Amino acid sequence: MAWGDEPVSTETAAARLAAMGITLPPCPTPLGSYVPALTDGDLIVTSGMLPLVDGKLAYTGAVGDVHDLAAAAEAARLCALNAVAAVASELGGVEGLSRVKRVVQVIGHVLSAPGFDQQPAVLNGASEWLAAVFGERGRHTRMALGSHALPLNATVELALVVRVDPA
Amino acid sequence: MAWGDEPVSTETAAARLAAMGITLPPCPTPLGSYVPALTDGDLIVTSGMLPLVDGKLAYTGAVGDVHDLAAAAEAARLCALNAVAAVASELGGVEGLSRVKRVVQVIGHVLSAPGFDQQPAVLNGASEWLAAVFGERGRHTRMALGSHALPLNATVELALVVRVDPA
Amino acid sequence: MAWGDEPVSTETAAARLAAMGITLPPCPTPLGSYVPALTDGDLIVTSGMLPLVDGKLAYTGAVGDVHDLAAAAEAARLCALNAVAAVASELGGVEGLSRVKRVVQVIGHVLSAPGFDQQPAVLNGASEWLAAVFGERGRHTRMALGSHALPLNATVELALVVRVDPA
Repeated sequence: MAWGDEPVSTETAAARLAAMGITLPPCPTPLGSYVPALTDGDLIVTSGMLPLVDGKLAYTGAVGDVHDLAAAAEAARLCALNAVAAVASELGGVEGLSRVKRVVQVIGHVLSAPGFDQQPAVLNGASEWLAAVFGERGRHTRMALGSHALPLNATVELALVVRVDPA
Repeated sequence: MAWGDEPVSTETAAARLAAMGITLPPCPTPLGSYVPALTDGDLIVTSGMLPLVDGKLAYTGAVGDVHDLAAAAEAARLCALNAVAAVASELGGVEGLSRVKRVVQVIGHVLSAPGFDQQPAVLNGASEWLAAVFGERGRHTRMALGSHALPLNATVELALVVRVDPA
Repeated sequence: MAWGDEPVSTETAAARLAAMGITLPPCPTPLGSYVPALTDGDLIVTSGMLPLVDGKLAYTGAVGDVHDLAAAAEAARLCALNAVAAVASELGGVEGLSRVKRVVQVIGHVLSAPGFDQQPAVLNGASEWLAAVFGERGRHTRMALGSHALPLNATVELALVVRVDPA
């Protein structure tokens, strides 16, 4: 699906996830003294999410060094999956994602070998997946940044801010 | 004009830009699957902006290596110019900037040679220009950060959050 | 005090700070053309804060190189202390901190030697201190990031977003 051709939200995020064969993981356990997400009025803010699968990092090491672009984009998608799981947790489960009115902001830091400058292409792995799940409500602003060091040597760290309809 | 001596906003941002001889560029085209800016209630959030001129990067490479402080500060100003163009686009054009009530936040990442630690001076290039355009409404909070890798090897990446008066 | 066992807020932040023997420093002076904090509706946003003591940097240089984890965690705590001083300044002084309803977000960048990946443990120095001061209202979302270059070679830079009760 091309960006800009997202479906109008007649289908819920839960239905789309089901159609893609995706079960949301449980809300990720924080790595320190913070919460994975919180609800502030009609906004949900997530913490920085890592590419975890079953509680273990699936991607460590820098893109342009250990990983190629495709692998790093998949790491970014896994970060977004965990972030959406944290958002769903704030909304009482996957069905609650139907209250998501807009993904406002994606902040993504990509562990980058020196000279690697394709962070936007890496983060498209997260952005395109968010558009597939939320349709045009998934179209967001983004900061794509390179880092030389990230927690647990994760390949990507990504956080979301989401606007929800009042309960 | 010294910081803290910004004019009270009796003149519009559009008038000040005209007086400075500045025509806003068109809203920048995203480098990936995201939008340049979006309006969330009375906030406008921009994506990370690069120092583009006519759609091309005017500054690539690290400050302290390829660029000196003055060049990097000009790169930061160009990022702010593009960010304001994206804000104006959300507000229906340059005249719509009169609805800007406050520049809330500037996040700036500066591509930095190892050991370079004058990111605040670099970002003053953006901050002082924002104060010149918006007067005391342009006084913002800021995070100034160094990066070793940025998209397309850009010298600066900068995003804005702006509060607007309801339409 | 373990995370998750924070006291319910029957005691004010001012009383807790006093019990810990902590006097808030004055609101930090910006390093450039920005403000240390601003109030945007019911949110207070701070600029990036450095580990200043009496206006001077107490910690410079990278963790994993110049500093060990314990020193870097103390640097993070000092950043949080300065950020809370800036928040208090927006609220008319330390007693005004009783209006803090929730610490929404902590963004922390840790000056990191190559290969250092314990940024979450460093930032726990700030997070645990915020929980001690604000109780369960101090439990926040967080982004923990590594940087190779920060302003004035500071060991940590940290910013807060805080929700307050209307005046």
